[in-house]
Amino acid sequence: MMISRIAILGTGLLGTSVGLALRQAGFEGAMTGWNRSPEQGQVALRMGAIDSLAGDGIEAARASQVTLLAVPIFATLDWMEKLATVLGPEQLITDVGSTKRLITEAGARLYNQPERAAFLPGHPMAGKERGGAALGEANLFRGAVWLFTDDAAARRSPQAAELVKEWREWVARMGAKTRDIDAARHDEMVAWVSHLPQFTATALSALLEEEVGDAPELKDVGGRALREMTRLGASPFSMWRDIAHTNTAAVERAIAALEQRLAYLRENLRAPALRDEFEQANKFRKD
Amino acid sequence: MMISRIAILGTGLLGTSVGLALRQAGFEGAMTGWNRSPEQGQVALRMGAIDSLAGDGIEAARASQVTLLAVPIFATLDWMEKLATVLGPEQLITDVGSTKRLITEAGARLYNQPERAAFLPGHPMAGKERGGAALGEANLFRGAVWLFTDDAAARRSPQAAELVKEWREWVARMGAKTRDIDAARHDEMVAWVSHLPQFTATALSALLEEEVGDAPELKDVGGRALREMTRLGASPFSMWRDIAHTNTAAVERAIAALEQRLAYLRENLRAPALRDEFEQANKFRKD
Repeated sequence: MMISRIAILGTGLLGTSVGLALRQAGFEGAMTGWNRSPEQGQVALRMGAIDSLAGDGIEAARASQVTLLAVPIFATLDWMEKLATVLGPEQLITDVGSTKRLITEAGARLYNQPERAAFLPGHPMAGKERGGAALGEANLFRGAVWLFTDDAAARRSPQAAELVKEWREWVARMGAKTRDIDAARHDEMVAWVSHLPQFTATALSALLEEEVGDAPELKDVGGRALREMTRLGASPFSMWRDIAHTNTAAVERAIAALEQRLAYLRENLRAPALRDEFEQANKFRKD
Repeated sequence: MMISRIAILGTGLLGTSVGLALRQAGFEGAMTGWNRSPEQGQVALRMGAIDSLAGDGIEAARASQVTLLAVPIFATLDWMEKLATVLGPEQLITDVGSTKRLITEAGARLYNQPERAAFLPGHPMAGKERGGAALGEANLFRGAVWLFTDDAAARRSPQAAELVKEWREWVARMGAKTRDIDAARHDEMVAWVSHLPQFTATALSALLEEEVGDAPELKDVGGRALREMTRLGASPFSMWRDIAHTNTAAVERAIAALEQRLAYLRENLRAPALRDEFEQANKFRKD
């Protein structure tokens, strides 16, 4: 095994969960963490997700075979710029960002070049509606899909290929199913199956806060259905801002399509077309 | 205790669950069930939710102190018409319908009159996205709110008052929290906290079936967030048709408001207003 030292830059929910999951999966090497807010880093350290907390993320990355960027998208792009000339061809850098086109392009431009480190753009389809190290879980990735959107890293050199292969093995040992997909296709797809559900929950929650927010007992009345449909309303703007900025066109298309679908349903509440909408919806849930 | 014989007309998910919950709560009287499809009635019987299956719902109601209507809304209205002249002032009839204005009006017109039975309009805020006796559960109402939208039944006679009081006690023993609310206000309120979430999930599921239905692996990719936001997509048209027909104006208003909110969010994906929407949504989820 080549990987004996991993740097985790960003010990929020995902970074901390990766640390815990790697330990649970039997990783025995060193894991150094860095976090913009050192308090979150201390939480991850106390939880055993990392075994040391670095003051300087660049140094932590330089000293590791694998660096995991587990920060929001623009911060990921920023780290990619900063680390590009610091790391060497014997090192691998990977990430967990929720949109992949910009990150994959930056990877091709700044990495996967002669004398540069290998870059493997990744996206575990797992998370929670609230962030932070304290919510980290060793089992967060169990059963989840972990997407990769460029295999150039693996083709660069035998050494890079080995690091990529090992990292993918660790991802599988964390319980995730790895899949490869083109970055542009990834962003279109997640606009439908991830971003649209999130923005729908946000719009619904914001609307309900306005309509019934002064009558908290109504949340009780709504029961499980309401709780589920608004759970993602708790998601932090800080994370979704970057997604909205880096996948705007696809998300706009998806939201506009839902607006139309809702209007159609509204106009057909007493018409036979309502049955077709329910049947179409039923099909989506047929397993 | 006056209630020793209960008729449950409709042994679907709710009727069966009420039978099971009453038994679990210690009800020792007789429970007769009737169901349009006798197969579902047999399932409820085998599960112990009822102890006999009646061939004739009218006879079952006539022989009971309390009759529970646990069928869709139009069927409820139909039963109310049929039973109005059959039952007497020493009997109570109650229901579980999801919209209450029409049912409460029918109750005032057909019942709660001299020589007529007492009618108590009820609505347990509990259910599942799929119906049927087999999914019935003794704990379905635990922690749920059970609304009543008219207290006229209790004011009619000492006998009716006692039946209503006992029924409300059984509801509490099933684990639900009883509350009273005006029928018109009920229908407005559930348009927001129950019907809007349902129609949103239906529209989202129908849209996603069209967009990604041919790529079932994408459902995996979406993970828990997607599963939750589309779970209600499995809800049956048969039940929601009646809700759409009997609460049309309020549901139209709620859906139109969500369309506007989505449009606003879509137009502000890169604008500061997006932060406000997330913060407003976060507030709704603050417990």
